[in-house]
Amino acid sequence: MIPSPPPTRPACGSFSFELLATDGTARTGLIRTPRGDIRTPAFMPVGTVATVKALYPDQVRSAGADILLGNTYHLMLRPTAERIHRLGGLHAFMRWQGPILTDSGGFQVMSLSRIRKITEEGAAFQSHLDGSRHLLTPERSIEIQCLLGADIQMQLDECIELPATYAETERAMQLSLRWADRSWRAWQANLDKGLAKPGQAMFAIVQGGIEPVLRRQSAEALVALDLPGYAVGGLAVGEGHDVMLRTLEATLPFLPAAKPRYLMGVGTPRDLIESVARGIDMFDCVMPTRNGRHGLAFTWGGVVNLRNARHAEDPRPLDPESTCPGARDYSRAYLHHLIRSGELLGSMLLSWVNTCFYQELMAAMRTAIAERRFAAWAEATAARVAAREPS
Amino acid sequence: MIPSPPPTRPACGSFSFELLATDGTARTGLIRTPRGDIRTPAFMPVGTVATVKALYPDQVRSAGADILLGNTYHLMLRPTAERIHRLGGLHAFMRWQGPILTDSGGFQVMSLSRIRKITEEGAAFQSHLDGSRHLLTPERSIEIQCLLGADIQMQLDECIELPATYAETERAMQLSLRWADRSWRAWQANLDKGLAKPGQAMFAIVQGGIEPVLRRQSAEALVALDLPGYAVGGLAVGEGHDVMLRTLEATLPFLPAAKPRYLMGVGTPRDLIESVARGIDMFDCVMPTRNGRHGLAFTWGGVVNLRNARHAEDPRPLDPESTCPGARDYSRAYLHHLIRSGELLGSMLLSWVNTCFYQELMAAMRTAIAERRFAAWAEATAARVAAREPS
Repeated sequence: MIPSPPPTRPACGSFSFELLATDGTARTGLIRTPRGDIRTPAFMPVGTVATVKALYPDQVRSAGADILLGNTYHLMLRPTAERIHRLGGLHAFMRWQGPILTDSGGFQVMSLSRIRKITEEGAAFQSHLDGSRHLLTPERSIEIQCLLGADIQMQLDECIELPATYAETERAMQLSLRWADRSWRAWQANLDKGLAKPGQAMFAIVQGGIEPVLRRQSAEALVALDLPGYAVGGLAVGEGHDVMLRTLEATLPFLPAAKPRYLMGVGTPRDLIESVARGIDMFDCVMPTRNGRHGLAFTWGGVVNLRNARHAEDPRPLDPESTCPGARDYSRAYLHHLIRSGELLGSMLLSWVNTCFYQELMAAMRTAIAERRFAAWAEATAARVAAREPS
Repeated sequence: MIPSPPPTRPACGSFSFELLATDGTARTGLIRTPRGDIRTPAFMPVGTVATVKALYPDQVRSAGADILLGNTYHLMLRPTAERIHRLGGLHAFMRWQGPILTDSGGFQVMSLSRIRKITEEGAAFQSHLDGSRHLLTPERSIEIQCLLGADIQMQLDECIELPATYAETERAMQLSLRWADRSWRAWQANLDKGLAKPGQAMFAIVQGGIEPVLRRQSAEALVALDLPGYAVGGLAVGEGHDVMLRTLEATLPFLPAAKPRYLMGVGTPRDLIESVARGIDMFDCVMPTRNGRHGLAFTWGGVVNLRNARHAEDPRPLDPESTCPGARDYSRAYLHHLIRSGELLGSMLLSWVNTCFYQELMAAMRTAIAERRFAAWAEATAARVAAREPS
């Protein structure tokens, strides 16, 4: 199915994307929004239920994050989009003044809700919190994201589990295309009603599993909608690193160079480097905070597992050169003790360390691209940051 | 039994206590230590396992705390006193540069360990963590506290549960006196060996349950040791507010005015006010942080239960006048959401709010005493801060 033709009215008053430099297929640029600029490549810390776990909003900002992500699924269930709207929107609620991107809720419906059923209409599901029943349609997802006041909103899509047959992948991709069209119409109607604001933007999501033909079909159909940005969805769900990269290579050539490209739910430092190399501009992932809570620290020297007994009497900090106090000022011995003891400060410090590291990594990539030495930088860096200590 | 006569050598080089003002039986003063001054009345945040739960050390300091407390029982089990000693002591380990008081471990042996047996020699117990067997003697407790590098160290005492018979209370009190004597001898021996440092101090603990006669006996015997400070132990264990205050009134007149007086494990804001009124100078309690993690906020307007649905859409902060960002900048609606969602940021913010409030409370008491208007201040404040919202 081909989505309906693009609307004639420009949808995004002051939302724009400027490419500042390219180096091979890697790009660095600036997304401008009324709430501030987003330097790309950008990593968006995940603020699932209106908090980036274990961090004060000021720490997220100071780490260098220009934008963060909120989860529609979680927020629609608690405290509800309507409540956040009455309280002045998500930015005021969680004290984050920069841009916020919200996902559509589709991915969490598949991964978290107890019972769900996908129909043409939308995704019916039961809450993982209290079993209450909900129907998430493309229109409702956009309405929720507008109520939250998200600066970048995502279409509802169907995320299938991999491996999947070609036919199943195609069916879900086609459904996602129809939902893209409905989402976009709903978004424009909300703009007319004043529920969406000028300068906010909606992105569509390329689906098609690991099938190059379907990825291309999906991308081309979505590009015809002429949206402000495009995401690549349905990856990092178990297909493996190399397959993910091949799928990116089969998809990105069919997305317009002048629009931001967002790889959803990715990933490790190495994933980020290799995806930027292929032309991705935006990422989000729970890895820095979730792994931090579990005692893993990302550093320029590799991944450090603070639970490991080897750190028990190590007086060195994780990185004496870091600008993050968590990495610079506290000994590995102390971090080991906090993590082993299940202390909240351990989660706080390592979530901070990792959030700072991810932002440092993005900044280093932006600089390397601007200076047109990205390939050499990536070559020197990717294996190093992915290294794990001997166990 | 009368403890042995006091030693002749002055034990505390640069540890001193200066009374700055009194107002009735309330006092304000300054404990001077090589690591910094402690303004009294002082509240010591509890850093059980080398962290004040859910707070960065800088936040504890900025809240106004001059000193914090570490728990010998927890630290001896994990990461062990010897490890902390090898890592440079507790101050360096947890990044707290001000004074630290450590308890003796006796209270937690009674409240936490799975199996314990009190003999003349000490307290034999099994770890609540791994079942390992330990013997905590007065000498070992002091050795641990010296290894940690505590600025104020506490004698080992026996804490009995209330209610208790007079005979049982007397037996435990007498044992605690003999342990005070052994602790003090051990402390001096450690000073000679260089394990205790000049300017550190050891306090003894008055026991005797809720029996005025025993409390007086205990106090008088300990005063004969001429120690740098005295604690009142064995209270706030279920005897009730009024009985606690009567016991203080039966104890404090027998402690020297020129030495600091520390009420262990207390308490609510009202407990603090009424104990300061009776002449207490120092407190510690987990209440601000533990209650914070459970959603309770202490404010000048009373105790606020953020779990309560009444706060779900309340855009007001807990206290717009507070200097604590946690109380001043975040809405009650957001705090309610975080606590209901079990988010770490909820624990972080409310532990911060309460730690700041307790320090504000102590500062207000110090000022009221210095200005000799403590009784009127207490009259106007005690009921207000103890108020609970209608449920």
